[in-house]
Amino acid sequence: MPDPVDFYFDFSSPYGYLAARKIDGIAAKYGRGVIWRPYLLGAAFKTTGQQPLLNIPLKGDYARRDLARTARREGAPFRLPEKFPFLSVAACRAFYWLSDRDSVLARALALALYDAAFAQGRDISGGEAVVGIAAGLGVDAGELTAALSDPGVKARLAAEVDAAIARGAFGSPYIVIDGEPFWGNDKLQEVEAWLKTGGW
Amino acid sequence: MPDPVDFYFDFSSPYGYLAARKIDGIAAKYGRGVIWRPYLLGAAFKTTGQQPLLNIPLKGDYARRDLARTARREGAPFRLPEKFPFLSVAACRAFYWLSDRDSVLARALALALYDAAFAQGRDISGGEAVVGIAAGLGVDAGELTAALSDPGVKARLAAEVDAAIARGAFGSPYIVIDGEPFWGNDKLQEVEAWLKTGGW
Repeated sequence: MPDPVDFYFDFSSPYGYLAARKIDGIAAKYGRGVIWRPYLLGAAFKTTGQQPLLNIPLKGDYARRDLARTARREGAPFRLPEKFPFLSVAACRAFYWLSDRDSVLARALALALYDAAFAQGRDISGGEAVVGIAAGLGVDAGELTAALSDPGVKARLAAEVDAAIARGAFGSPYIVIDGEPFWGNDKLQEVEAWLKTGGW
Repeated sequence: MPDPVDFYFDFSSPYGYLAARKIDGIAAKYGRGVIWRPYLLGAAFKTTGQQPLLNIPLKGDYARRDLARTARREGAPFRLPEKFPFLSVAACRAFYWLSDRDSVLARALALALYDAAFAQGRDISGGEAVVGIAAGLGVDAGELTAALSDPGVKARLAAEVDAAIARGAFGSPYIVIDGEPFWGNDKLQEVEAWLKTGGW
């Protein structure tokens, strides 16, 4: 079985949301699994000097239009939260904590968090919101609440963020297939072509 | 006959080069002409606060790899000039000056300039290089040399750059179909889908 695909994303990235709806299905067509690796774009921005997409003059206006248009084309419900961009630290910590216990449930949590943020336009930046969504999937609210401020969980996320940036991740989605990186939701067709052909 | 497509690009943009090889063919399939509108990305960067792509940590490394990979996939010869990014003021002035006299020849000049810069990796930043390439297409070298420092030609380019930014252009390629903007070489499949379907 070939190596899984690495899927780097930030929970506060709407293009990451669009890619998250598709990546498993694309990879599965070519016998590949996907390792979901949420990280913090803000940390990458310290290295790249970039700023949140929608805050950039001209480019931000374009991105708002492109996001709505791309979501329409893909049949994805889409609504930008009022508070945007937002901190996704709690979402990331919850994901990695759960992922060490039940990776299938962690995947479901990631999709539920993305759905809350970008299909429903809810604020998922706070720990309470994240715990509430996780509890809806059967996760123990007390355990997760404790985990969100656990030093080991914090360190785990910090290590994942460092590893993502060391891997070259600077945006979301950022997908790596056998060492080959692809950035952006617009690249998913190329991701599929690469998986299908083995590269060119 | 439907309105032509607007194709904004910078002569120092390698993704613009890749798009320039395809845009006329894509538009022609759907009965559309293309108006080529070179502009200066540096002027847009003053508005957006962005910097040249390849100078950005992480993103620059990715872009070098993606450019080579995309060129291979598209069968486009590709070689980045040593001096990069470079000033494309002379190329733009030559284009607009010629375009007012012979739009077909101006298109040929644009393709020849792009080919020199990104297929051959030549330095096309200077007026002499631009005039040499134009002369190879039969343009009068003396007239073009004079035009490059002509106040009217300078003003024409400045107006085109302002108009591009007023239209929302912040990158290259930036393509507008009936008011709908598309940014990036990766968007050309979507550009084609939009032309084919009339939008979604």
